[in-house]
Amino acid sequence: MGFMQQLRRRWHDANTLVCVGLDPEPAKFPARFHGDADAVFGFCRAIVDATADLVCAFKPQIAHFAALGAEGALERLIAHIHANHPGVPVILDAKRGDIGSTAQHYVAEAFARYRADAVTVNPYLGRDSVQPFLDRADKGVVILCRTSNPGATDLQDLDVGGKPLYQHLAATIARDWNTHGNCLLVVGATWPRQLAELRTLVGEVPFLVPGVGAQGGDAGEVVRHGATADGTGLLISSSRAILYAGNGPDFADAARAAAQALRDEINRHR
Amino acid sequence: MGFMQQLRRRWHDANTLVCVGLDPEPAKFPARFHGDADAVFGFCRAIVDATADLVCAFKPQIAHFAALGAEGALERLIAHIHANHPGVPVILDAKRGDIGSTAQHYVAEAFARYRADAVTVNPYLGRDSVQPFLDRADKGVVILCRTSNPGATDLQDLDVGGKPLYQHLAATIARDWNTHGNCLLVVGATWPRQLAELRTLVGEVPFLVPGVGAQGGDAGEVVRHGATADGTGLLISSSRAILYAGNGPDFADAARAAAQALRDEINRHR
Repeated sequence: MGFMQQLRRRWHDANTLVCVGLDPEPAKFPARFHGDADAVFGFCRAIVDATADLVCAFKPQIAHFAALGAEGALERLIAHIHANHPGVPVILDAKRGDIGSTAQHYVAEAFARYRADAVTVNPYLGRDSVQPFLDRADKGVVILCRTSNPGATDLQDLDVGGKPLYQHLAATIARDWNTHGNCLLVVGATWPRQLAELRTLVGEVPFLVPGVGAQGGDAGEVVRHGATADGTGLLISSSRAILYAGNGPDFADAARAAAQALRDEINRHR
Repeated sequence: MGFMQQLRRRWHDANTLVCVGLDPEPAKFPARFHGDADAVFGFCRAIVDATADLVCAFKPQIAHFAALGAEGALERLIAHIHANHPGVPVILDAKRGDIGSTAQHYVAEAFARYRADAVTVNPYLGRDSVQPFLDRADKGVVILCRTSNPGATDLQDLDVGGKPLYQHLAATIARDWNTHGNCLLVVGATWPRQLAELRTLVGEVPFLVPGVGAQGGDAGEVVRHGATADGTGLLISSSRAILYAGNGPDFADAARAAAQALRDEINRHR
């Protein structure tokens, strides 16, 4: 089953728009993982197993693994999700972007090596740099559009023919790049007005929305401004607020409670 | 010694503007590496040892290693360069870009894990996403500006207040981001007019210039349009044309000859 089909099933059958971001930071792990050589995998697996029925997707952030030399843990974690939680898609958050021949190697990294169902990509190099990802009709291509950080304004808001660059990009993607219907856009929860404008602009294209919780975005606002008419169209991503909700022996229960609270808060506004 | 100081020494003392890109593709390796479990490291080390005196920098492209699960080979390769060719800086070509907290993990990946002297980064997320790299005054921050691919025009050429986005970005970097003097720009060899305009715009900021050889850029044109007044300011990068110049037992000699020919061609135009 392709990524988009998996995602829609999770939205409808599991009734959740929550995406749990897997950003392991060993310094924040509960005491039981201290001195454990396989702590990154063990911690993430516990979070995954505690939250899988509450999410529409998992999103491991690759820098957190790469900085630790923990690529093996990432491979095993994604394999664990596929084996134990089939139907829950995995978005590799890598924000890759390079020209044609090298882009093919990033495609191999995300889909052949890690077996991700979708990957985040950076559009700055233009369509030909994204094309090898777009060509994989069964995979999701999650393109940076209006990110959640304050510096998003530096380039993304530049005025291009009377509208901001990120709107020009979103319209181009929806009109020209999305021939296989496998594009998604990253739009930060910290920008509700922009979410609403983009939703009008691109129809049903799903938004991956980081920035609720620690970064200050409000889940209700995100749904109000970003959802499609049927109350879906969103993957509302939370990482630290769920992963590190507790750091005692009950950390997995605390993570589950935080994911459930977010799911319920979102669903109240749908 | 910081990256910029190393680079200037190589330009002047070794009299070369050549940067050899290390893009291992096992299918193109000479027969002697077939069946060799450590072929990626062995091949790249042979290229490095055959060309080190001819280059101002080496530039391993990380996707080529990541697609193969060869992060260990990349670590050892960079350690080999530092140990055996001290003073030759290593640019990790990773084109990373993410928001603050995650950017810190990419900083750790490039500089703590791989011990690179510089890294390529993508500016789409804005200054705060690049700041953790800029803060490392001893390291080079090589920012995508006008890339060598045809799709470069899609976003980079958008008209922003009467000039193309990439010029707006370059001017912003030179004026505001380059407080430690550790910024470089990626400008494709395939765009000589844009090289000349950028050189006028940013003064002495060095350009990393891919796209000579296989992509059709002309080294003489690059020097004529992109060099600073003293005939430096450029890292002219070549990968495939050097790495795969031969694929017989003498592949390292062929790579050396190709690097030497490029260096000499460049120097004829300085």
